[in-house]
Amino acid sequence: MLKFTLKEMQSYLPEVFPQVRGMFAIDRMDEELLVMRLVADDRHLRPGGTVSGPAMFGLADISAYVATMARIGPEALTVTTHCSIDFMRKPASGADVLAHARVLKLGRSLSVTDVLLYSEGTEDPVAHASLTYAIPPAKG
Amino acid sequence: MLKFTLKEMQSYLPEVFPQVRGMFAIDRMDEELLVMRLVADDRHLRPGGTVSGPAMFGLADISAYVATMARIGPEALTVTTHCSIDFMRKPASGADVLAHARVLKLGRSLSVTDVLLYSEGTEDPVAHASLTYAIPPAKG
Amino acid sequence: MLKFTLKEMQSYLPEVFPQVRGMFAIDRMDEELLVMRLVADDRHLRPGGTVSGPAMFGLADISAYVATMARIGPEALTVTTHCSIDFMRKPASGADVLAHARVLKLGRSLSVTDVLLYSEGTEDPVAHASLTYAIPPAKG
Amino acid sequence: MLKFTLKEMQSYLPEVFPQVRGMFAIDRMDEELLVMRLVADDRHLRPGGTVSGPAMFGLADISAYVATMARIGPEALTVTTHCSIDFMRKPASGADVLAHARVLKLGRSLSVTDVLLYSEGTEDPVAHASLTYAIPPAKG
Repeated sequence: MLKFTLKEMQSYLPEVFPQVRGMFAIDRMDEELLVMRLVADDRHLRPGGTVSGPAMFGLADISAYVATMARIGPEALTVTTHCSIDFMRKPASGADVLAHARVLKLGRSLSVTDVLLYSEGTEDPVAHASLTYAIPPAKG
Repeated sequence: MLKFTLKEMQSYLPEVFPQVRGMFAIDRMDEELLVMRLVADDRHLRPGGTVSGPAMFGLADISAYVATMARIGPEALTVTTHCSIDFMRKPASGADVLAHARVLKLGRSLSVTDVLLYSEGTEDPVAHASLTYAIPPAKG
Repeated sequence: MLKFTLKEMQSYLPEVFPQVRGMFAIDRMDEELLVMRLVADDRHLRPGGTVSGPAMFGLADISAYVATMARIGPEALTVTTHCSIDFMRKPASGADVLAHARVLKLGRSLSVTDVLLYSEGTEDPVAHASLTYAIPPAKG
Repeated sequence: MLKFTLKEMQSYLPEVFPQVRGMFAIDRMDEELLVMRLVADDRHLRPGGTVSGPAMFGLADISAYVATMARIGPEALTVTTHCSIDFMRKPASGADVLAHARVLKLGRSLSVTDVLLYSEGTEDPVAHASLTYAIPPAKG
């Protein structure tokens, strides 16, 4: 059972991260899969029109954050402790990048999320990431 | 022997990455160590004034790129294939973040660079990354 | 199209890695998925009867090797260049560990393989790994 | 201040890990650096006489464990949660492999340790790893 509906998360996220407003969208959010979208704009592009590595990292990072928060409820202090990311293909020019995030483990003190990144409309992933979030101890 | 002087790299980098102009500076570049600086500004900050994870990733990434390029000469196609990054401490509010990059391996087809990130003026690293760059085959 | 049948790989593997004979078995090998098995024996066990971290690493490593070799044909020089592994749950005592390996990228000079490890008979993965293999240049 | 002397750790380690007795030795242990040695024998060798990837992983893993335990005292439940390892060079044939481990972070719930692996007598590292250990909550 998730602790947010898709609509609730769509309005909660820009409240806690106002600086990324307009940059990321949530396309789907259920227990099996979270799909987030990096809206390709000039800020994230390398020469040639492809999305930059840091922008893809940012998308993977926020996807793992949203997927974790959907399960534990709002925990402002949750922080990334580790990310391992493989960049495998050049993203398609001009296409949005989509993240498919799946929570592999939700423990008391950490979550592990697997994220595959795709250029919209193509089948082979452009990048693959695994992220660990530290979850603060519940307050008694 | 590096293939760029510090001054040459300082003028070359904004030519090939105009979109990061003003964001990163090179403080030191020699065979032992490269030191780069992320100039803390509003674009890279989380609420509370600390540098965001994606901004730290971006600093680690460009440091590994510069450290590799300093050794092989300008190779526009060099691309990040992997990054593993541990976020260990919250960066100090308002301080620039410095990257200390050391090339651990320079092979014919890939480089591996170790990067420690520090908040300026503090001793314990805020993050630790290892990055792999793929080097395109030399043209015959 | 794989370059080995399951039977061919089952007889080829102990030839090139005689030191792991009896340690690993190949349960399934097709284009979608490779399943390998670590036969739990005393050599791989921690006190309490669970499989050790190095034994799980070894299983992930050989699975990525077999999955890559199945696609490129026998290339004795193929070597692991990177592994990132998350240990998420304690393996079940006394159960074999199974690796589910999927090749995410097969390039000219490297492959990236995603591996999920399970204790046989349980649903949640015990570990998750991503491995990069360097592929030697084809001889002209 | 470490909670073990070198001698204490040398006799404690084979008690808690009897299965690795004779496989690993501790050459140096102080606040700055831990040096451990993988004694090259037939079990760890690949054809050609070089140390295998899983054996190097095992050395990095136990080094991070010992370096962490030296700081927190004996905590039998401490477990590896993540390892990222780059294999950079082929180990020298017949030489022992040495691990140089440095604890980068010691928090309440996790430690992060950087490990460089060398073939004894050579200067360039053969592998580089970063390991995270989860530390169980102190019992009240």
